[in-house]
Amino acid sequence: VTGFTEDELIEVVRTLLSEDVPGVTLGIGDDAALIDMGQRLLVLTVDMLIEGVHFELPWTSPHDLGYKSVAVNVSDVAAMGGSPRYALVSVAINPEVEMPWVVELYGGMREAAREYAMSVVGGDTNRSDRVIVSVAVAGEVAPGRAVSRAGARPGDRIVVTGSLGAAAAGLRLAEATPAAMGSALGSAWGHSFLTAMARPVARVGEGQTLAQLGATSMMDVSDGLAKDLSRLCVRSRVGAAIHLSRVPVAPDLDRLPPHLAVEPLDLALYGGEDYELLATLPEDAVEAASGALRDRFGTPLTDVGQIRAEQGMVAVSDDGTENPLAPGGWDHFAG
Amino acid sequence: VTGFTEDELIEVVRTLLSEDVPGVTLGIGDDAALIDMGQRLLVLTVDMLIEGVHFELPWTSPHDLGYKSVAVNVSDVAAMGGSPRYALVSVAINPEVEMPWVVELYGGMREAAREYAMSVVGGDTNRSDRVIVSVAVAGEVAPGRAVSRAGARPGDRIVVTGSLGAAAAGLRLAEATPAAMGSALGSAWGHSFLTAMARPVARVGEGQTLAQLGATSMMDVSDGLAKDLSRLCVRSRVGAAIHLSRVPVAPDLDRLPPHLAVEPLDLALYGGEDYELLATLPEDAVEAASGALRDRFGTPLTDVGQIRAEQGMVAVSDDGTENPLAPGGWDHFAG
Repeated sequence: VTGFTEDELIEVVRTLLSEDVPGVTLGIGDDAALIDMGQRLLVLTVDMLIEGVHFELPWTSPHDLGYKSVAVNVSDVAAMGGSPRYALVSVAINPEVEMPWVVELYGGMREAAREYAMSVVGGDTNRSDRVIVSVAVAGEVAPGRAVSRAGARPGDRIVVTGSLGAAAAGLRLAEATPAAMGSALGSAWGHSFLTAMARPVARVGEGQTLAQLGATSMMDVSDGLAKDLSRLCVRSRVGAAIHLSRVPVAPDLDRLPPHLAVEPLDLALYGGEDYELLATLPEDAVEAASGALRDRFGTPLTDVGQIRAEQGMVAVSDDGTENPLAPGGWDHFAG
Repeated sequence: VTGFTEDELIEVVRTLLSEDVPGVTLGIGDDAALIDMGQRLLVLTVDMLIEGVHFELPWTSPHDLGYKSVAVNVSDVAAMGGSPRYALVSVAINPEVEMPWVVELYGGMREAAREYAMSVVGGDTNRSDRVIVSVAVAGEVAPGRAVSRAGARPGDRIVVTGSLGAAAAGLRLAEATPAAMGSALGSAWGHSFLTAMARPVARVGEGQTLAQLGATSMMDVSDGLAKDLSRLCVRSRVGAAIHLSRVPVAPDLDRLPPHLAVEPLDLALYGGEDYELLATLPEDAVEAASGALRDRFGTPLTDVGQIRAEQGMVAVSDDGTENPLAPGGWDHFAG
């Protein structure tokens, strides 16, 4: 144990590196950085996937790994309301990796790049004793259309796209015995959990639509709804009330084998890697946003609660009882 | 052994990912990517430093590591003739790392960012069992001023900034016993080798000056002069003749302790991590370029040979004898 959490580390980094920088609209501490390029804002983000931390080779297809390494960065751009444009890929492979594996890895990156209308424009290669894929994505957004984590206001509704918890269920399956994973793959629910984990979908169109329709703050859900909402609240200096029964729990989470079972609501609140969008909207904008996401993308948008002036998060039960909601969630450091 | 070299891997990646992309002036296979942003070209590059591959914790100060992780990317921007502007830093640390170490790491990044007039605008943090620092840098260059690896023409002179081999000598010292490193640190030459390795200087002003004064091709020397020149020749579809006695060998390389000794010329030709600039210039531009680099930056520029139409590289001795020059050099994969 290091004695510090990821959020504590990020706060130290922010303090160390933050300065008033000409041309930088938004720096460290959001999903991506925003840089003034004249008519457009440049959106920059970077994310690393490390063997043994984010994935294990026995249960990872190189194609999926390449795809995901791009998609998780695209998700950060989407969370700003931006359009991804270019990717740089830095790859380390170990000596046991064969060329067909590498070809599959880059093939997965190419597939993701095409799907999101981007180009892979450069990168570098390294040798290592484990596989590491670090991707940087440059995108753009019109000035005035970018949405940060910092704009949530008391009274805003809290909305989330899609459903939560399936990727975390997939990770539990993958980390279990090969037999458990193998038999799960034969079922529709097992397949959907493993796909949610291995090939996340970045909500680019949804992010732009939410930005156009008045989102006051936005981020992607990568470390669990509770943890990520707490980060949004800290940056916006507000609190939040979440109605537990409204949280969009992914279907079939109760089908996990008994020895892997977790309460579905806990997977949705504290599991990670969903890459759905979490946003806040003025109350009178929710219905239009929900309709637009359904009509344009077939993506559900769920109202899960409300921003409050008092800091801290509370969980509201159906009978109106309120209890403190701990951020919990997946912390890379507290592990 | 993987059965393929880094250059073979890069060629596969180029083939897989290269497409005609609107707005991308230059993609995979150069020091950095160039992207059309209207009045300016955006320069994008990424590089990763991995514990156990590029450095070992016992002989690495976190401040130097942070500094170097930024500087090696700045060097790639410099090699295009560009100005670095923004850095994104992705860091993985292991559980044994303490907060003061992390603070030093980011302090080194901040120092490099200030020295090169850049801002660190974002990034992410991860847990891993080893330290990994992946940095992406965005810079800019005026259209028409960017220099790639592909423009060398027969008859052009081949020039290199500064001197070569000291960083490779520093690496030999660092990887030797702590006693060897400790006693070397007490000497001026040992200190200069270790500094060359740990805190490389990116030649930003020099790169812009060479671009202004007519450089036809340019790259930075990260894997040894012989290897990197061979890459430049392949991209430019030309060959090269190098006069061995003109290669600017760093001073005091013959002072390495006997058990670590390597022929100084071999360190200069085949050692890596110098981060000097290798460029080609029309013959009539060399004198002005050399004077400008000396006057403006105090940086020597050495004419080491000439580009030829016939592909392949030859080493020319003082008596005019020519022998094939193997690319050799540090290959991350053939290792």
